[in-house]
Amino acid sequence: MYARMSTDAIIPFKPVNPKTRLSSVLGREEREEFARAMLEDVVEAVRGSGAIPVILSTQPFSHQGVAVEVIAAGLNDSLNQVFKKRDAPLFLVMADLCLATPEALRRVLSTTADIGIVPGRGGGTNILYLKDPRRFRADFYGASFVKHLQVASEFGATHEVVDSFRLHTDIDEVEDLVEVLIHNTGKSREFLLSRGFSLVTEHGRVSVKRYPHKQAL
Amino acid sequence: MYARMSTDAIIPFKPVNPKTRLSSVLGREEREEFARAMLEDVVEAVRGSGAIPVILSTQPFSHQGVAVEVIAAGLNDSLNQVFKKRDAPLFLVMADLCLATPEALRRVLSTTADIGIVPGRGGGTNILYLKDPRRFRADFYGASFVKHLQVASEFGATHEVVDSFRLHTDIDEVEDLVEVLIHNTGKSREFLLSRGFSLVTEHGRVSVKRYPHKQAL
Repeated sequence: MYARMSTDAIIPFKPVNPKTRLSSVLGREEREEFARAMLEDVVEAVRGSGAIPVILSTQPFSHQGVAVEVIAAGLNDSLNQVFKKRDAPLFLVMADLCLATPEALRRVLSTTADIGIVPGRGGGTNILYLKDPRRFRADFYGASFVKHLQVASEFGATHEVVDSFRLHTDIDEVEDLVEVLIHNTGKSREFLLSRGFSLVTEHGRVSVKRYPHKQAL
Repeated sequence: MYARMSTDAIIPFKPVNPKTRLSSVLGREEREEFARAMLEDVVEAVRGSGAIPVILSTQPFSHQGVAVEVIAAGLNDSLNQVFKKRDAPLFLVMADLCLATPEALRRVLSTTADIGIVPGRGGGTNILYLKDPRRFRADFYGASFVKHLQVASEFGATHEVVDSFRLHTDIDEVEDLVEVLIHNTGKSREFLLSRGFSLVTEHGRVSVKRYPHKQAL
């Protein structure tokens, strides 16, 4: 028989006034609901991958059945506090990766390198799998994917870049909602449909439109 | 010993006035050069995957060592002409997928389903691998990924969606050039660098800037 300890998956989350780049189509409360719907999808995918979700929140917050740690610091400081005292592998998954599936996440967890990393759009980092978190340093914001490869190299750690559009697609901009409506099958898509969003094609290009006052049928 | 016929990989290409959404940063001749640089990277990745590149061009055009078929029709009509008379598997790879690698393409070619498909950003279709092209119909433009899944279903064909950001990222908009500078290691990145493009980070977000009159060192 083969037994393995499950890996904790840290999911950083900002419950208050999140996703401000969606402000043109979603009010503040709606953005908070949408962020929570995406979090639910991420938590479910993480559980399906065999890892144990742990939400790292900027504010006190509760999410059914999931451990929540509140650290009222910036993302890098919070994570580096966690990394320093951690003597087991750690998974780090961004809370807006609502296209994530258990299969995609398992591709990261099965890397033979010291570090598995998934770039986000625009040079960000969406996922890290650190076999020895004490030999790493979070450096988010800007071209963090490039910076994280440098950090890995400084620590003499090998890395694998996992090639997944599901894990590459962070949901920040209105145009990203197209991807949610097409590829998500969970709470995130359900939320958008319930608020009147749908796909429209104009001049061969696809975007989302929100139809006001549309009632759920 | 195991012998296998290589699969033809159709690469649709528009040599004249391509990539008009890059007009704000690249002149027409530059866009034609850049499209050709991306094509070279795609051709090399296709060759590395073991498939044989065949360029399907809207205009007479030559590319060293690669067969070129000219069909002066729209993309769907051109492809459907090819599909109808084809009694062997066919690979279809868009010419702007300059992040493609042999490994990523082989993931599509190794599908056990009747059809391998890779969605592009915004609901498009970037790659198709058709084991029986006569049982398919191209329906590009708009949300073609969704339409192609419907076509597969009409023909009773099974499909696999291959989860790759390298094959998902088609290069159309100025912001897509960030991905080229970060993830491409071939002619496409080289072209952008030679024209003075580089990454800049402002307020934590990464974009490209073009420095005019920058000379190659």
